[in-house]
Amino acid sequence: MSSEPQGDFGLIGLAVMGQNLILNMADHGFTVVAFNRTVSKVPHFLANEAKGKSIIGATDIKDFVSKLKKPRRLMLLVQAGQAVDTFIEALINEGGLEQGDIIIDGGNSHFPDTNRRAKYLAAKGIRFVGTGVSGGEEGARYGPSIMPGGNEEAWPYIKDVLQSISAQSDGEPCCQWVGDDGSGHYVKMVHNGIEYGDMQLITEAYDIMKRGLGLSHKEMGDVFAKWNKGVLDSFLIEITRDIMYKEDDDGTPIVEKILDAAGQKGTGKWTAINALDLGMPVTLIGEAVFARCLSSLKSERTRAATILEGPTPKFEGDREQFLEDLEQALYASKIISYAQGFMLIQNAAKEYHWKLNKPEIALMWRGGCIIRSVFLKDITKAYRNNPDLENLLFDDFFTKAIHKAQPGWRNVVSKGALWGIPTPAFSTALSFYDGYRTKDLPANLLQAQRDYFGAHTFRVKPEYISDKYPEGKDIHVNWTGRGGNVSASTYNA
Amino acid sequence: MSSEPQGDFGLIGLAVMGQNLILNMADHGFTVVAFNRTVSKVPHFLANEAKGKSIIGATDIKDFVSKLKKPRRLMLLVQAGQAVDTFIEALINEGGLEQGDIIIDGGNSHFPDTNRRAKYLAAKGIRFVGTGVSGGEEGARYGPSIMPGGNEEAWPYIKDVLQSISAQSDGEPCCQWVGDDGSGHYVKMVHNGIEYGDMQLITEAYDIMKRGLGLSHKEMGDVFAKWNKGVLDSFLIEITRDIMYKEDDDGTPIVEKILDAAGQKGTGKWTAINALDLGMPVTLIGEAVFARCLSSLKSERTRAATILEGPTPKFEGDREQFLEDLEQALYASKIISYAQGFMLIQNAAKEYHWKLNKPEIALMWRGGCIIRSVFLKDITKAYRNNPDLENLLFDDFFTKAIHKAQPGWRNVVSKGALWGIPTPAFSTALSFYDGYRTKDLPANLLQAQRDYFGAHTFRVKPEYISDKYPEGKDIHVNWTGRGGNVSASTYNA
Repeated sequence: MSSEPQGDFGLIGLAVMGQNLILNMADHGFTVVAFNRTVSKVPHFLANEAKGKSIIGATDIKDFVSKLKKPRRLMLLVQAGQAVDTFIEALINEGGLEQGDIIIDGGNSHFPDTNRRAKYLAAKGIRFVGTGVSGGEEGARYGPSIMPGGNEEAWPYIKDVLQSISAQSDGEPCCQWVGDDGSGHYVKMVHNGIEYGDMQLITEAYDIMKRGLGLSHKEMGDVFAKWNKGVLDSFLIEITRDIMYKEDDDGTPIVEKILDAAGQKGTGKWTAINALDLGMPVTLIGEAVFARCLSSLKSERTRAATILEGPTPKFEGDREQFLEDLEQALYASKIISYAQGFMLIQNAAKEYHWKLNKPEIALMWRGGCIIRSVFLKDITKAYRNNPDLENLLFDDFFTKAIHKAQPGWRNVVSKGALWGIPTPAFSTALSFYDGYRTKDLPANLLQAQRDYFGAHTFRVKPEYISDKYPEGKDIHVNWTGRGGNVSASTYNA
Repeated sequence: MSSEPQGDFGLIGLAVMGQNLILNMADHGFTVVAFNRTVSKVPHFLANEAKGKSIIGATDIKDFVSKLKKPRRLMLLVQAGQAVDTFIEALINEGGLEQGDIIIDGGNSHFPDTNRRAKYLAAKGIRFVGTGVSGGEEGARYGPSIMPGGNEEAWPYIKDVLQSISAQSDGEPCCQWVGDDGSGHYVKMVHNGIEYGDMQLITEAYDIMKRGLGLSHKEMGDVFAKWNKGVLDSFLIEITRDIMYKEDDDGTPIVEKILDAAGQKGTGKWTAINALDLGMPVTLIGEAVFARCLSSLKSERTRAATILEGPTPKFEGDREQFLEDLEQALYASKIISYAQGFMLIQNAAKEYHWKLNKPEIALMWRGGCIIRSVFLKDITKAYRNNPDLENLLFDDFFTKAIHKAQPGWRNVVSKGALWGIPTPAFSTALSFYDGYRTKDLPANLLQAQRDYFGAHTFRVKPEYISDKYPEGKDIHVNWTGRGGNVSASTYNA
């Protein structure tokens, strides 16, 4: 004899993120049904972390679905890839999901998969949402950033749960509807790419202070503590301060003992690949991903260190002033990285025909997630002032900020080059800034070369449009005086 | 009544590259059968460019195949993608290709497609070869670089034709067997990526001379002419010299009139994406592709130029000395780019289980192709001295070259940053060099951050392995003193 279903919300996947989201929902008054592929984890969770809370266990998929009120609302927090598809099929075939029920994929799915699943499930009348969830285990437990997109019909039914468990920033939930199809996972992907960039920038500042200025970890902790009270105020600077101060039993900073080899198989890589695909110069995330690749070649680097020479950093001058320059270098580079990230999102919206809400995206990143910062308030403000802002750098606040930052930024990049301390992200950000603000880049030469060797043709600059060079005409020059009158059609360089 | 077939070699696709390869083969004594999808192009070609040469036209696919001696040897030079598959099917079904016949795809196919086709055709007993062909129209006509890979059984049958039409360098043909499956197209892809890099480096030197030193195009032509007699001696420097000197009717250098917006939808992008996929830090090609993306945002840049400020370059000092520094900056960056390219190829061989011959690859690039240069002789020599060389930078010649180049290189990168002239490729090359030769990179902090916010765990440096931190153990620290004892399993940052 079955009773009325009690579950407000279901969640499958009891790894740390899943457990914490369930506990978070229960704290906010929802009755949550929990399930896990390895079923023995369910009673263990109920008997421990979930004890005394409004959390119900399920014994199998059918039981799981039967315990949910209609329309059923459930989230998958399982490994991205095949496991998501497998659970979707099981929920429909074994679980008996019905038209109008809602499946939310809260894992790190790649957005093309979410596009596919949204379409597939829409045809079956199931409402599918793919949502980014950021904030790590702490965030999941006490308020993550949540970025849902997909079938908008689902939003009124899931808004209450998701917004109640999400982080809040100045009274606004860091969970807003992102847009169509896989746009929620897309925005989460870009968020993660930006996170790669933020982390890389901080490590470059750390390296410059450690090897360039010779600061101790205690001194660097003090610098990060100070920065955390200014324009760089953010979660990542805050934890970096803590990391600098944290010593092992023997008095050595723990960070010094950690192997300097980082993985890169994740969403940062996807962001960089997507940027290449869309033709957007998201150089800072690209360099951040490549920096992780280089770090992972530890044994090769160790050998190279014995063969390849470089200068010995020697700092002269006012250390406090240089630390201010470094703060400005980090800040300016960060502005560039976010400007690039929003360029990418803006272009994706065009390319994939998504309607996206840029102020809301910045708002969602303001709290809960890894990149949360004071800085994102200024971005939210910029896009609220002008939702059609062509580029973040054109917002008056950021134009002024980068103008103020640039002398210090240039000093740091220049010193890094002279000292032999790598600053790939600081440098690429500066090159981007200088390229972006240049009306006439040297790509004219590149086009000339392509026309020279491959008859690729070129166009002329607007100021040279004339009868000889009409607008929109592809021009080929016979550079050598021999051959070269046929334009290329198969060769691509 | 059909006569004995006369054709030594068949070629489909009469765009400029195809026409020129046919003429090249005919010059070397081969009788070539020509065909084209738009069939009317065939008699036109026979009546014009091919007139009086050993070139036969075909009226359809069946006629084309029937005119070839067995085992048939034929090349497709059609647009990469569907057209290649369509012709393959037509050659088998309409043309009646037989076991042992050889299809060569000489277009710009993406290597995964070549992998697929090689496998598909091997099952039918057809020998498939995918070959890169580089050199533009001039190269195709008088000696390109040819990079064939695929079914090695085909090699003895096609070696004579391909090596006779290819460029020669010091008496050796710039056409050697590359390796299995799509490795020929793969090596061509990396070649093109390197070409993107070489071109970007030259444009940066051009920009520094033009805006930093205020040189005229005539003066810059003289500089490139001088460089073309030294370590930078290469086809691209040579044509850049010509381009600098080339004036329009009104006396303006033509290059100044060319729109500074370059496309990037090609093989450079594939190389950068493949580098990200394989986790190899091929940063210079990445920046070169992104620089093209940025150049294409011409209207946005034109607006940015009115809003975003920067310094005014002001050169002081010895101009000749600075030009020497610039030459060294270009040379050192180029060494890095090729070192990165070979790192990628080396890794691909491991990842895709290809046996590749590195000295032969450098040899193939020495002549005929766009990146041909004196420099590639030194690379060939390095890999002939030691085919197992771990990194090009470890070869004594290149170690010394980069040591010599670095003061000038550092000066140029530092000046670019201070002057506000973008040097994304020079800078990323220098950051790579300085990162690669650093035993302890700041990625230890990055791993600490990931463990702090996501319980991702870390390993310790070899020198800190102990009972407390055993080798190969994933360690998690409770950084905050609260929570954080469960390692993450679903969250990836």
